[in-house]
Amino acid sequence: MRTADQPIRISLFAPSGRMGQAIASAASDDPGFVIDQDHADVLIDFSAPAALEASLDRAVSAGIPVLIGTTGLDSTADDRIAQAAKQVAVLRAANTSLGVALLAELVERAAKALGPDWDAQIFEIHHRNKVDAPSGTALMLGKAAEGAGHSVGYASLRGGTVAGDHDVLFLGPEERVILSHRAESRMIFARGALAGARFLVGKPAGLYSMRDVVGSL
Amino acid sequence: MRTADQPIRISLFAPSGRMGQAIASAASDDPGFVIDQDHADVLIDFSAPAALEASLDRAVSAGIPVLIGTTGLDSTADDRIAQAAKQVAVLRAANTSLGVALLAELVERAAKALGPDWDAQIFEIHHRNKVDAPSGTALMLGKAAEGAGHSVGYASLRGGTVAGDHDVLFLGPEERVILSHRAESRMIFARGALAGARFLVGKPAGLYSMRDVVGSL
Amino acid sequence: MRTADQPIRISLFAPSGRMGQAIASAASDDPGFVIDQDHADVLIDFSAPAALEASLDRAVSAGIPVLIGTTGLDSTADDRIAQAAKQVAVLRAANTSLGVALLAELVERAAKALGPDWDAQIFEIHHRNKVDAPSGTALMLGKAAEGAGHSVGYASLRGGTVAGDHDVLFLGPEERVILSHRAESRMIFARGALAGARFLVGKPAGLYSMRDVVGSL
Amino acid sequence: MRTADQPIRISLFAPSGRMGQAIASAASDDPGFVIDQDHADVLIDFSAPAALEASLDRAVSAGIPVLIGTTGLDSTADDRIAQAAKQVAVLRAANTSLGVALLAELVERAAKALGPDWDAQIFEIHHRNKVDAPSGTALMLGKAAEGAGHSVGYASLRGGTVAGDHDVLFLGPEERVILSHRAESRMIFARGALAGARFLVGKPAGLYSMRDVVGSL
Repeated sequence: MRTADQPIRISLFAPSGRMGQAIASAASDDPGFVIDQDHADVLIDFSAPAALEASLDRAVSAGIPVLIGTTGLDSTADDRIAQAAKQVAVLRAANTSLGVALLAELVERAAKALGPDWDAQIFEIHHRNKVDAPSGTALMLGKAAEGAGHSVGYASLRGGTVAGDHDVLFLGPEERVILSHRAESRMIFARGALAGARFLVGKPAGLYSMRDVVGSL
Repeated sequence: MRTADQPIRISLFAPSGRMGQAIASAASDDPGFVIDQDHADVLIDFSAPAALEASLDRAVSAGIPVLIGTTGLDSTADDRIAQAAKQVAVLRAANTSLGVALLAELVERAAKALGPDWDAQIFEIHHRNKVDAPSGTALMLGKAAEGAGHSVGYASLRGGTVAGDHDVLFLGPEERVILSHRAESRMIFARGALAGARFLVGKPAGLYSMRDVVGSL
Repeated sequence: MRTADQPIRISLFAPSGRMGQAIASAASDDPGFVIDQDHADVLIDFSAPAALEASLDRAVSAGIPVLIGTTGLDSTADDRIAQAAKQVAVLRAANTSLGVALLAELVERAAKALGPDWDAQIFEIHHRNKVDAPSGTALMLGKAAEGAGHSVGYASLRGGTVAGDHDVLFLGPEERVILSHRAESRMIFARGALAGARFLVGKPAGLYSMRDVVGSL
Repeated sequence: MRTADQPIRISLFAPSGRMGQAIASAASDDPGFVIDQDHADVLIDFSAPAALEASLDRAVSAGIPVLIGTTGLDSTADDRIAQAAKQVAVLRAANTSLGVALLAELVERAAKALGPDWDAQIFEIHHRNKVDAPSGTALMLGKAAEGAGHSVGYASLRGGTVAGDHDVLFLGPEERVILSHRAESRMIFARGALAGARFLVGKPAGLYSMRDVVGSL
């Protein structure tokens, strides 16, 4: 049994993937975490939709919480996650940056406060190799901006080595409120995943989001 | 007696001042308001510190709410406002833009969520004729950003005809959250004052801020 | 005959149009110009493609230079302008802002200096009532950015009352150069048209652009 | 003797310094360069003012060009550099980013084109550990913006891990031209130094700047 002063043991479902390696690197820089594939306090899965069933099964069997960072999941996956969340704590996150999670919360509040004479628009820039547009994060922010009947427009640019810029623009009568996030490096997603893992330790069964992680800070 | 379907009657304490004229112009564009210097539902004062006592007396005598947009008030003024707020509703605002009021609320929330490895900084730009720096609005936003022990730095630029740009930057480990307001025209302060006046109608005695106006939207 | 110390006499081809009125207003604020529909030093046409032939005829008949601010012109119009430019000075401008003309020059220079590992991208925002996207100015800036084999991407947002924001982003390997223009008001196009008119006085026959106006400053 | 198809041999004057190591790392990623401390085509010195005399002597003795990236040099250093530049090619650079060098050229052009009703202002952000403000790059850009009698104001913010943001704002009558650079990583200075080294190969004696490097692209 782990005690509170021991590092949190992380098991990576896909340790050799890009995010698996980044999380291992972030954990090695933080004395609060250790990678332990066999005796874990939290399971982290940034793999692929096809592997979701296996990772959820593993978390439920071991009776440990799981962070699902996989994107591109369908409604069958939604059901599986809902089932698993009845037995263990599940944190589902399209983007594990703490700054983006906070931004989504602020966007939701702003959308509620601003009336229909304000237009909500999302602008994002990513590096030249990113193929999908708008980004999953832009779509998530757009959903948060929909409050009070705002229909949301999107604009995307691709180029260079941009790690990820997102702007949510509320354009009103002769004034604007702009809520922005800048990722300087993709390592923030690994560090945010570790913050999510710390949040999950000891949590009761249920479905959580990065918004809950930010809300707990 | 005014009924709910009649326009709100505004009395301007300084009708010939720059803001007085702007509010009269905004009211003439909005069927929900009418300027009536003698039979008013709300008094609006954008004059000078020396006139504060007279405007508060007038509101208290008439038993109507008052919006105080005057800046540069001292602690004697604070006391006078507190006394008046025991008898009528008083809305005190250094900046009557709805967008800025919302921004201040979002900044306060962000400052609470973000830990000490995030630095809070304020940047503002105004036209070449503005003499004070940082702007009163920047100082107000800086106060909102102080949560969780953030010490706040300020930077100001002056030039051209900029109506007012304010950025609150939370600079963290390899990521940034930036909350911004852009004023395209000084008319937004007049329209925001009218929104404040509408908020005040029927409110019990007490001291209110633009944050309450935004919270009520 | 006008002497150098007399105001420049402007004839407006469409004085009651939105831009015609704006130019008349700008001229009334500037002692260097006067509106004189009958005895003009320069003709200004911000009307519609169908009126181009008549305005060029008028300039050629009177032997005075003409500024064509009309957009949406086709190749027949190009020919007509080329013919007129053999007899009088013709300034053709899709956007008469001096800042935008300067920006186009800087973009062209940057595009030449930056190699193929830099991506050129254009971002623009305009008010909610603008129907075309990308804006004509964005397309003009994109053409200026094409140097050195850059293929240019565009992104547009529409909302609020934005007079016109344009960003040309050169996104390179771990660095970015961003060249931007912000219009605070549509009056800048009227004042820029007057600067174009001043440039045209005394110029020999030929086809000119706002780039020439900026180059002459 | 090196032939054109062989990699350029770089000697680092201070190979164990922060920039020395970064340049060695950038050279190992680029087949056009090799580090060769003994038989060099170009010497690169990012050390300290006290070492300048030794590095210039070494370049002159070996008859090879030298890039001086050291900052904080005084007027004695200016004289030494001028003397060395009579015998070998010397490239002196306060900032070796190609993007910044291009920006300085664009700023100089813009400052010449824009009249006295435009105000030039510089804004920069760097990480929380940078002690000097404004940055040396900001001062260099400010010098470039001084054309046509502009007096230049500066604003600086410090926080987080920002590698370096610089904005040159020309604030005019109801319009703005903003010329910006964003460094995503400090590696750009190493890669820019290599571009400077390539520029220097075969150049006649004389004093050069990064502006010449950009001009040659």
